[in-house]
Amino acid sequence: LNRIKASGLKLQFCTNETQATREKFVKKLQGMGFDISVAEVTAPAPAACRILKERSLRPHLLVHDDLVPEFAEIDKTNPNCVVIGDAAENFTYANLNEAFRVLIGVEKPVFISLGRGRYYKETDGLKLDVGAYMKALEYACDIQAEVVGKPAKMFFETALAEMGIPPQQAIMIGDDIVNDVGGAQRCGMRALQVRTGKYRSVHTLHP
Amino acid sequence: LNRIKASGLKLQFCTNETQATREKFVKKLQGMGFDISVAEVTAPAPAACRILKERSLRPHLLVHDDLVPEFAEIDKTNPNCVVIGDAAENFTYANLNEAFRVLIGVEKPVFISLGRGRYYKETDGLKLDVGAYMKALEYACDIQAEVVGKPAKMFFETALAEMGIPPQQAIMIGDDIVNDVGGAQRCGMRALQVRTGKYRSVHTLHP
Repeated sequence: LNRIKASGLKLQFCTNETQATREKFVKKLQGMGFDISVAEVTAPAPAACRILKERSLRPHLLVHDDLVPEFAEIDKTNPNCVVIGDAAENFTYANLNEAFRVLIGVEKPVFISLGRGRYYKETDGLKLDVGAYMKALEYACDIQAEVVGKPAKMFFETALAEMGIPPQQAIMIGDDIVNDVGGAQRCGMRALQVRTGKYRSVHTLHP
Repeated sequence: LNRIKASGLKLQFCTNETQATREKFVKKLQGMGFDISVAEVTAPAPAACRILKERSLRPHLLVHDDLVPEFAEIDKTNPNCVVIGDAAENFTYANLNEAFRVLIGVEKPVFISLGRGRYYKETDGLKLDVGAYMKALEYACDIQAEVVGKPAKMFFETALAEMGIPPQQAIMIGDDIVNDVGGAQRCGMRALQVRTGKYRSVHTLHP
């Protein structure tokens, strides 16, 4: 990363992290010794905020407590849409019913999901990810969520806009063949897969 | 009902109720003045128990506390499948993760759902039904649930077997065009829709 920065190339970090604000995420990486700032991070929550503002949507949030500050400037009164993230412990029966009632109560429900992950591993075991709860609400309301975050095309377009360059001049580097490499390629970028992180020599479509 | 019984016709009650045992369900109806016994009720939980026994499956239960007694005789040690019902308050983040881990941990996961309802209304508002949580786990595990209960063909076949008659000699009476009428017709029975209960003059496919 230091060599890329020293060379004068533009650099943007693309993450699907929705359990914390970019501030927290950046502090964690700085603590590990990385030279990184909040402005260099493209994440699903700010992408969702742009959509909400553009379309004058007032969200009901079903997200992790630590993510709420990302939506500080968004009007959340009298909600007319739902934004779902990896809410973890906030995925309670009551909270899911509440989000459902918002969606079923508006004429043309808008449902924004900060990712479509199936599950992930934590030290105390496997956990259902946002995608599972997204599917539950999609089925109950007979609607389709708009997914922001990788591998959505718009997510990569946002990162490119933040750097001010066209896709042909950018290269995506990541460990996830679907979310990183596939998403970037569909956006017209070239992509490199690193053989670290979640890389395995044989990949299934849904890792 | 009294006239049907007096005529000598055989009678079986088909319910998708999974928040209580048949005993509780029957007591409630008896309290309303209906002449009904447990043996006359076909319900999803006993149908699931038959499947579990036939295929030597040991279920992890994600169901309402009041339904657990229906599974009293089933071996639940070292589970190799999951049975999901309308668990209501038992649909917690922890319980959903636990059911998910059972499913993802076995080689050929069997997932039995006591219905596929989207939502229902209670005095304090709309609630997500079992179908929504079924979809969440289906997506996370990339599997399909086996649905017992109406409108599954096997559910009606069980009711017919309990009466000892072929489908051509039976008629289904219900208020739900999909779960009652459609399900019975696909099973070779004739069906009547009553214009009470959830009947509306215009029906959508997913009421």
